Amino acid sequence: MDDIEIDEVATPELADPVLIEGLPGVGHVGKLAAEHLLEEGESTLVRRVYATEFPPQVTVDDEGVAELTCAEFHAVEMDGTDLLVLTGDHQAATNAGHYQLTTAFLDIAESFGVERAFALGGIPTGELVEEYSVLGAISDSALREELEAVDVEFRADEPAGGIVGVSGLILGLGHRRGLQVACLMGETSGYLVDPKSAGAVLEVLEAQLDFEVDFGSLEDRAEEMEEVTGKIQEMQEGPSMGDDELRYIG
Amino acid sequence: MDDIEIDEVATPELADPVLIEGLPGVGHVGKLAAEHLLEEGESTLVRRVYATEFPPQVTVDDEGVAELTCAEFHAVEMDGTDLLVLTGDHQAATNAGHYQLTTAFLDIAESFGVERAFALGGIPTGELVEEYSVLGAISDSALREELEAVDVEFRADEPAGGIVGVSGLILGLGHRRGLQVACLMGETSGYLVDPKSAGAVLEVLEAQLDFEVDFGSLEDRAEEMEEVTGKIQEMQEGPSMGDDELRYIG
Amino acid sequence: MDDIEIDEVATPELADPVLIEGLPGVGHVGKLAAEHLLEEGESTLVRRVYATEFPPQVTVDDEGVAELTCAEFHAVEMDGTDLLVLTGDHQAATNAGHYQLTTAFLDIAESFGVERAFALGGIPTGELVEEYSVLGAISDSALREELEAVDVEFRADEPAGGIVGVSGLILGLGHRRGLQVACLMGETSGYLVDPKSAGAVLEVLEAQLDFEVDFGSLEDRAEEMEEVTGKIQEMQEGPSMGDDELRYIG
Amino acid sequence: MDDIEIDEVATPELADPVLIEGLPGVGHVGKLAAEHLLEEGESTLVRRVYATEFPPQVTVDDEGVAELTCAEFHAVEMDGTDLLVLTGDHQAATNAGHYQLTTAFLDIAESFGVERAFALGGIPTGELVEEYSVLGAISDSALREELEAVDVEFRADEPAGGIVGVSGLILGLGHRRGLQVACLMGETSGYLVDPKSAGAVLEVLEAQLDFEVDFGSLEDRAEEMEEVTGKIQEMQEGPSMGDDELRYIG
Repeated sequence: MDDIEIDEVATPELADPVLIEGLPGVGHVGKLAAEHLLEEGESTLVRRVYATEFPPQVTVDDEGVAELTCAEFHAVEMDGTDLLVLTGDHQAATNAGHYQLTTAFLDIAESFGVERAFALGGIPTGELVEEYSVLGAISDSALREELEAVDVEFRADEPAGGIVGVSGLILGLGHRRGLQVACLMGETSGYLVDPKSAGAVLEVLEAQLDFEVDFGSLEDRAEEMEEVTGKIQEMQEGPSMGDDELRYIG
Repeated sequence: MDDIEIDEVATPELADPVLIEGLPGVGHVGKLAAEHLLEEGESTLVRRVYATEFPPQVTVDDEGVAELTCAEFHAVEMDGTDLLVLTGDHQAATNAGHYQLTTAFLDIAESFGVERAFALGGIPTGELVEEYSVLGAISDSALREELEAVDVEFRADEPAGGIVGVSGLILGLGHRRGLQVACLMGETSGYLVDPKSAGAVLEVLEAQLDFEVDFGSLEDRAEEMEEVTGKIQEMQEGPSMGDDELRYIG
Repeated sequence: MDDIEIDEVATPELADPVLIEGLPGVGHVGKLAAEHLLEEGESTLVRRVYATEFPPQVTVDDEGVAELTCAEFHAVEMDGTDLLVLTGDHQAATNAGHYQLTTAFLDIAESFGVERAFALGGIPTGELVEEYSVLGAISDSALREELEAVDVEFRADEPAGGIVGVSGLILGLGHRRGLQVACLMGETSGYLVDPKSAGAVLEVLEAQLDFEVDFGSLEDRAEEMEEVTGKIQEMQEGPSMGDDELRYIG
Repeated sequence: MDDIEIDEVATPELADPVLIEGLPGVGHVGKLAAEHLLEEGESTLVRRVYATEFPPQVTVDDEGVAELTCAEFHAVEMDGTDLLVLTGDHQAATNAGHYQLTTAFLDIAESFGVERAFALGGIPTGELVEEYSVLGAISDSALREELEAVDVEFRADEPAGGIVGVSGLILGLGHRRGLQVACLMGETSGYLVDPKSAGAVLEVLEAQLDFEVDFGSLEDRAEEMEEVTGKIQEMQEGPSMGDDELRYIG
């Protein structure tokens, strides 16, 4: 196959669509948030992206049917706003692969008329989070004011290590193409899949893009995670110890 | 050399040939099963596939003659059924290499008129296996019924980690070309080369493709492995211990 | 994007410009020295070099604005001498990437008329340095005399492991294009970011290229590092121990 | 630069030249043997091969002059026999790189009219060697008799792990081009640079290609290594212990 192959599943007309990226990363925050939009909105699969940079792998569904690893774009309508939502199970395997893949993603987004994008992710704090702040990074300083108005925080030079992977490149390569891009990073311990952090990121999107989404299933999942966390804390504390730091639990 | 070079050793006419893939993997189940077909049927080497993704290596035979690492296709006739059997000692070294190599394999299969394929492999259970079930994964839900009729099991979302390597891509890329593909995975401890598991996989193939194969040499090899296993268990148990889990023995 | 993309920010006329390379390496000596030239001289950004061999990463500035990883060329005038200064935060990820990237760097340098180059770096001594010698390696034996005249030392077969990365290739590939190249390596412990070693390298450049630079800010930074070093030594020595060897501190 | 660049330093007419390859490997046996031929015969540098698969590195000579990593071909006349000797300090970094590099090496050899090749190397025994046997592997069974006549041993299926790297591919890819290739592997502990093993390999070449070479400098180096070995054994044995196994010493 070619390095990248794109299946054009559907090509609906979208009105000023906004790209939302949620691939796997810290706390699976971006992935949880993007998948929640797919579940709650009216969503149509529009593109599948296969890439030789992805693992050579199929997943098997509950009928035993195999599906080749790919990333997917769905068109999702939320209260009249058109979103183009990018999800998947993998990032690229090499530096060059990340650049090639993000270039393909942005080509697709532009073919639908995208001019604005949000890359969703998590930012690790190293300890259990009480209040879920959402940190921002932007392609253009003009975006800052409107994001601060919906409670996005900006902290000088954070995240200190920069933003890596597809989210980082949607900012970096998207800006080079003239897109307006913001990366929204939900604070998360970094040790747990974190539906609450995903909820905090979605609340920002709701306010910014003027739609409403039901958080029920995300809250259910958050409760499950809290039970798990609780049990782990009990185990760790045992008769006499306590420690805020946890190992990663997916 | 080019990334992939193919020696056309012979090009016999084959009637509705079925591709059987058996490259190295868990318990060498697929490789043992495929090689057993080569030994027992009337087999003709038809293609050698060299690839820069394979290790830069020659093997040395019992006369001291070196042979460059390659994968091989043999045409094998089994009771009137034409098989095209893919075997070899290596998989690719990189993600992209797996995709390129499997693409070349499928091109060859299609040049012989292949429309159906079986990827053979093992699925690790982590403990010694008493009854050798064969698990299935398919490119198309229509294949399920006929495979269940020959005792292939389907378990929702198994294998949990998906199917990786050439077997996975023969399913995934084969489906994208319109081939009907099943992956047959023999249960195996995962710690031992497992001729019994290979036998279980071959029994499914016999029933499905309507041929009979002599299992004598495979049973001999299974007995040798059992002697080895027995000795290891004795050593491990010593005067007082026992443990079902073994290290890998090839 | 292409493997390498170059933004032509400005293309001033330069008179016999000298390429100065200071990418990250041992003790960040080359990077500190090159960045100091940018700060002290009259400097203009002329090229940005993006490469798929760089990490897929953006950095975030104090306004929250993301910038895609790149290397930069600045034209810097120092007392009438035109310098073309190459700086950045990363080297390439693979062997082949180093060659491709250095080739692009040399193409840019030649487009500005560069015929002479200095690759700046550090050479690790493994212990705290008292007197900061600068070691040289050259593309052509004819360069040796004039460098010895400005106190560059040459020691047979040093550095023993050769010179790796972009600095090594500017020597090696630059020579193949007919450039006159010297690598100036400041002695440094190898465990600390070392502004003093960078100063020693700059003193050689001053004498060789006949300009003067203010060392104030570099000395301030050196003092900060010495405080850090002092504290670490105290901690290590505690009531009774001493050890010249330190861990890396950036 | 291109993936591979070749400097044509000289192109003398050679009569039925024989390719001798001696790149780094086990005990540096092949490299020592090939370099000894360069020193003792009448040798002319004919090609330098640069490759982006080599480390991005220059070495520095005793005058401080840097030389870019490359492999070299020398034409060497030994008692009327023309040899084309391939030496260097590195192998390739990736699987594909090994194939590309060996392809370039064989192209050069064929441009000089080479039809026969010897790949020189070591085969590790894991213990100190008393009698230095030389093991053979060949591209064609017709070569076996004449090699056995000059004391090359052939052992079924040895080396068990095959032959990897450029030596293996000169056999494998050379055979695919119709060259007659033998790999000569001197037994060596695998822990020491082994001039004696290199001598044993050269004695085979002398008898096979009908030339004589002075072993003086190789014997001197072997004596130095024996002194080192002796001291290490003393240290290891101390007052009461002994062990035939040594760590690698270069």
